[in-house]
Amino acid sequence: MARARVLERPQAESKRRLRLWLRLYAATSVIEREMRRFLRRHFATTLPRFDLMAALERAPDGLTMGEISRRLMVSGGNVTSIVAGLERDGLIGRRQPPSDRRTTYVALTERGRAAFAEMARAHERWINELLADASDHDVDALVDLLAGLKHSSEARAEAGRAP
Amino acid sequence: MARARVLERPQAESKRRLRLWLRLYAATSVIEREMRRFLRRHFATTLPRFDLMAALERAPDGLTMGEISRRLMVSGGNVTSIVAGLERDGLIGRRQPPSDRRTTYVALTERGRAAFAEMARAHERWINELLADASDHDVDALVDLLAGLKHSSEARAEAGRAP
Repeated sequence: MARARVLERPQAESKRRLRLWLRLYAATSVIEREMRRFLRRHFATTLPRFDLMAALERAPDGLTMGEISRRLMVSGGNVTSIVAGLERDGLIGRRQPPSDRRTTYVALTERGRAAFAEMARAHERWINELLADASDHDVDALVDLLAGLKHSSEARAEAGRAP
Repeated sequence: MARARVLERPQAESKRRLRLWLRLYAATSVIEREMRRFLRRHFATTLPRFDLMAALERAPDGLTMGEISRRLMVSGGNVTSIVAGLERDGLIGRRQPPSDRRTTYVALTERGRAAFAEMARAHERWINELLADASDHDVDALVDLLAGLKHSSEARAEAGRAP
């Protein structure tokens, strides 16, 4: 069905990938804006805080500040202030393992883990509702196509940065 | 092909749309990060500045500050500072039409229009390279699927906000 619609309006060759990026950006922006609204209204929190807690939830042994920066793709200054806020709220803690006193690891506290679990459940219900009108077939097709797009653009970007 | 891969790893029903959102966010983040790098390196500019100039380029009569905020989906404070910076650089100007002295419109200057045209050409070449390994078929399929996803999630979001 997607294919049939495409054939009806052929695109200039050079605009095809630009158009994809604009669509990708637009779709992500709509969902992201709604998610920020959802997190603010129901949990009085922000998307960067939620993302950081999600990254820590997947890393039971904790993450260094550098690892957090790389996973969230935000600048170091922002990570520092987000970490400070979450620590103030008792949701995360810092510790230095006896084996390596020079490195600080950030990890969720018990309270942070419980708070994130509650947010994650509500977030999953919310995203199911927001995307309810996309068919299972389209969702699965998008998941696979987006994985391919991410990997191929990452590889190109890496190649472009090679010396 | 996408379908075949999906059948190999059936997903829990409730995780399907969450997974789509995570993939969408990840793919957009990779491209956006590379684009920020590209704009900084080649044009010493930022993505919000580029986005704002792109919005003005599509509106020859100019836009009000409110219209800019809605199109860029950033907060009012940010728009004000981006507009101030572009005005300082002589890339945009403000004017009040004789018919409506209370409303200020922001528009590209001649210099801004020329600067944006150059950036847009380079940006298009760059995105063609970054996404070169995605097949035309996959690109077209993604464009259509993403348009559907954007529209259906916008409609759901509107319905959720209805009184």
